[in-house]
Amino acid sequence: MTVLEAIKLRRSVRAYSPRPIPDDLMQRMRDALRYAPSACNIQPWQFVFVTDPTPRRDLARTAKEQMWMADAPVTIVACGYPKLAYPRMGGRHSSLDIDIAIALDHLTLAAVAEGLGTCWIGAFSEADAKAILHVPEDVRVVAMMPLGYPASDGLIHPVTEAQRKPEVEVFVLERFQS
Amino acid sequence: MTVLEAIKLRRSVRAYSPRPIPDDLMQRMRDALRYAPSACNIQPWQFVFVTDPTPRRDLARTAKEQMWMADAPVTIVACGYPKLAYPRMGGRHSSLDIDIAIALDHLTLAAVAEGLGTCWIGAFSEADAKAILHVPEDVRVVAMMPLGYPASDGLIHPVTEAQRKPEVEVFVLERFQS
Repeated sequence: MTVLEAIKLRRSVRAYSPRPIPDDLMQRMRDALRYAPSACNIQPWQFVFVTDPTPRRDLARTAKEQMWMADAPVTIVACGYPKLAYPRMGGRHSSLDIDIAIALDHLTLAAVAEGLGTCWIGAFSEADAKAILHVPEDVRVVAMMPLGYPASDGLIHPVTEAQRKPEVEVFVLERFQS
Repeated sequence: MTVLEAIKLRRSVRAYSPRPIPDDLMQRMRDALRYAPSACNIQPWQFVFVTDPTPRRDLARTAKEQMWMADAPVTIVACGYPKLAYPRMGGRHSSLDIDIAIALDHLTLAAVAEGLGTCWIGAFSEADAKAILHVPEDVRVVAMMPLGYPASDGLIHPVTEAQRKPEVEVFVLERFQS
């Protein structure tokens, strides 16, 4: 599968099979995260791999009770270290969100290529998620992502043109018209 | 090239050939950006494709005088609409940086698969970049990215283990130890 095919096949999978993920495949998923670039190569992150069913359910509860999350065999919780991340734009803007998004995006595309599903989870109680995983005070939970086989093959089909804005709305040639 | 191969081959390319990028390849690069997911599929972005040499040089100057940027035939300037982006975590945290990082990350990997190079540019004067491109007041410039053929094939080689933190520092099993 080419990169562009993976891009077009990637879906937010919200129904998972409990089928375990083989060890060699999990290794490739870890590589996808770990080889990601970050500003100044600081890698200001840690990724918690949660496989115990109880904290997976607890984490799903913090995310607006999206309990389907807990059906995936792994919940990946992306944690970031704000004090380590590169201060972009003269320090007015941290690279933390961007760095972690790059790593997780790598994972989403590598997962598609292996028949696995993921879903970006950005709406959750960070305080509750931190309590569940004993996350240190100065560490942020930036996003969560279930990882597993989709519950059925029918969940995976390419993104359609109708699901995205047309080119004319997305791309600007040379400069904005003032 | 598989997704994981692209992940391991992706480099920050800081020397570009002026060789033009064929139209069909540019179309695939636009698709890689446009098909990216975003929180609630809001797509709170516009991407400026700058091909005129003068503004490319001006943009490079805003980015700590990294004039090599201007050797690439295109500079992509990722703009975001903070008022449109999804308010994550109960509104305390915007999805804007993450949404735009996902789209640009798609581009970086799709580019590798086609022999093109990119480089994340996060350190620049946003005010100056906005002035150059006539970016409206309520629009943010989140990142810039040159796109082009690397100046030499030798620039592209896989990321080595030594360039990344070891697994034990990156991954946490189940929860932090308190």
